Amino acid sequence: MKIKDIAKLAGVSPATVSRVMNKNGYVKAEKREAVEKVIREVGYRPNEIAKSLKNKRSNIIGVIVPKISTETASRVLEGITQIAKERNYQLLISNTNLQIEEEINALEFLSNKLVDGIIISATEVTDQHLAVARQLTVPLVVIGQRMAGFTSILYSNNHAVHDLVDHLVQAGHKKIGFIGVDPKDKEVGQVRKQAYMDALNHHQLPYKEELVAIGDFSIESGYQQMASILKKQRPTAVLAVTDHLAIGAIQCIKDNGLSVPADISVTGLGDVKLAKYLSPPLTTVHYYFKTSGQLAASELFNQIDQLNMENKEIYVDYELRIRASVKKIERNS
Amino acid sequence: MKIKDIAKLAGVSPATVSRVMNKNGYVKAEKREAVEKVIREVGYRPNEIAKSLKNKRSNIIGVIVPKISTETASRVLEGITQIAKERNYQLLISNTNLQIEEEINALEFLSNKLVDGIIISATEVTDQHLAVARQLTVPLVVIGQRMAGFTSILYSNNHAVHDLVDHLVQAGHKKIGFIGVDPKDKEVGQVRKQAYMDALNHHQLPYKEELVAIGDFSIESGYQQMASILKKQRPTAVLAVTDHLAIGAIQCIKDNGLSVPADISVTGLGDVKLAKYLSPPLTTVHYYFKTSGQLAASELFNQIDQLNMENKEIYVDYELRIRASVKKIERNS
Repeated sequence: MKIKDIAKLAGVSPATVSRVMNKNGYVKAEKREAVEKVIREVGYRPNEIAKSLKNKRSNIIGVIVPKISTETASRVLEGITQIAKERNYQLLISNTNLQIEEEINALEFLSNKLVDGIIISATEVTDQHLAVARQLTVPLVVIGQRMAGFTSILYSNNHAVHDLVDHLVQAGHKKIGFIGVDPKDKEVGQVRKQAYMDALNHHQLPYKEELVAIGDFSIESGYQQMASILKKQRPTAVLAVTDHLAIGAIQCIKDNGLSVPADISVTGLGDVKLAKYLSPPLTTVHYYFKTSGQLAASELFNQIDQLNMENKEIYVDYELRIRASVKKIERNS
Repeated sequence: MKIKDIAKLAGVSPATVSRVMNKNGYVKAEKREAVEKVIREVGYRPNEIAKSLKNKRSNIIGVIVPKISTETASRVLEGITQIAKERNYQLLISNTNLQIEEEINALEFLSNKLVDGIIISATEVTDQHLAVARQLTVPLVVIGQRMAGFTSILYSNNHAVHDLVDHLVQAGHKKIGFIGVDPKDKEVGQVRKQAYMDALNHHQLPYKEELVAIGDFSIESGYQQMASILKKQRPTAVLAVTDHLAIGAIQCIKDNGLSVPADISVTGLGDVKLAKYLSPPLTTVHYYFKTSGQLAASELFNQIDQLNMENKEIYVDYELRIRASVKKIERNS
């Protein structure tokens, strides 16, 4: 279906169809309605029509990721690529190595290049992010964080952590430690920690500072933070906010001559590919990272096609994966 | 240092410097030598000079990867990004999902876009690859496979497998099984299997068809291929050509009520991030994937800058990582 076919069916000129499609220039109401009716009836295929309109699309979307060598980033990218490929789009990827300035630079760089839209998987959302984002002339979708005025794909951090704490409490645990990350990362650092505190409160368990340690996203940090907790007090269970932190914590517990889960139960979040092949297999939350990439890309294309310009907050599903790293303990231990 | 500064020092016109830099147009031998001498003396900084030449670079390199959601791909990409960032370049990434046609398409797509050069991490090199590659007007560097007429960054597959077999034989193993992949992947499928056969031969051990199974790159395939070997004969050790295959094989051995390494020793290749956190920690070969990305990018930039147009084969270092998944056994067992 080409522009001139739509024009013929609607009884208008191709230029009129083009003006209606591009929302650019004056068109009489009755002509506009005729064109829109034909488009509805023949099936709206914006990409093909777009092509025939020669409206100078680059068929490239820009993607900004915090650290490309993580499994999370690569799963998100796979989801984005899948949708992009259906649309014959390629990705222009910027890897920001967890540096805020790099994220800002990448946003600015991409806005100068001919990309049709941008997806950012941000670690933080600063005023600078917002300032640059608001000057963009192409649509922007955010993954993993909220950004006012833009569509965000979010993980159910609050519910997921509540589910993990519920699971631990049901297994009889009362001394539940916590390994988190810097609160500058609002979703992982703040929301997950707040959820841990709220869940303890919900179960009428006290929050104990000495059972809590804050690290970064590395396995090594999980090891160090677990060591710092063990120096102060021994919990019966530990909730780490990522699988890598949990893996480091398990290694630390083993190196201290203790056993998981016999002495200390451990849970993670994220469900990395190897989580079920660890010893013990890791109880964690499976996030559909690939799905989040797909959703972000779909939303972005909706905005590129001007099908839906409304900004939304979309939560990606998750699933508790109960494995052998949590042990049921006696009520009064 | 700008073009006009070089021109002043060399006593020639800026246009002459430009012609020498771009290898474009006639320049008298003595003038060329004067320019080259100045460039050598002041330190050649091609990127800045290139900018001042306004030679219409896009500052984008195209990268084609077989499967973006693997750890190997993401480590290679991190290496490329690191070098690219130093040069203020961005990556345009195509994910081919292990499909040959997609690789060819991506090559063609990128050659039509304004990229300054292309890096391909190929699973196979077909005549089609070569045909498209030879028509490119920008430099191309290949990672992981040989491609005649182009610079290749290669892994020492042959030596690495020999080292693994040596290690197993020194530990007393004589019945060494093998889990490989499709020979269409020349480097991983063919070279690694041939090295296994040669190494057995070197140690005067017989090659036994029933101890060999061929899968794909997934953990699940490692599990299935191990199961098929166990149905025929029980080896004392198994060499899997990737860590994921090894992880699947270990799971299968455990599910058959056997123990690693007490009953069967297992080795992998690649050294994924979690290899040392497995139980038992996996004996494997560490490949410097990030380094291979850095090397590929450096070679590509040399070619983009026309510093070195010679095609090379560069081998990336590797290291045997001896961990607890291999057991020393009695001489005559």
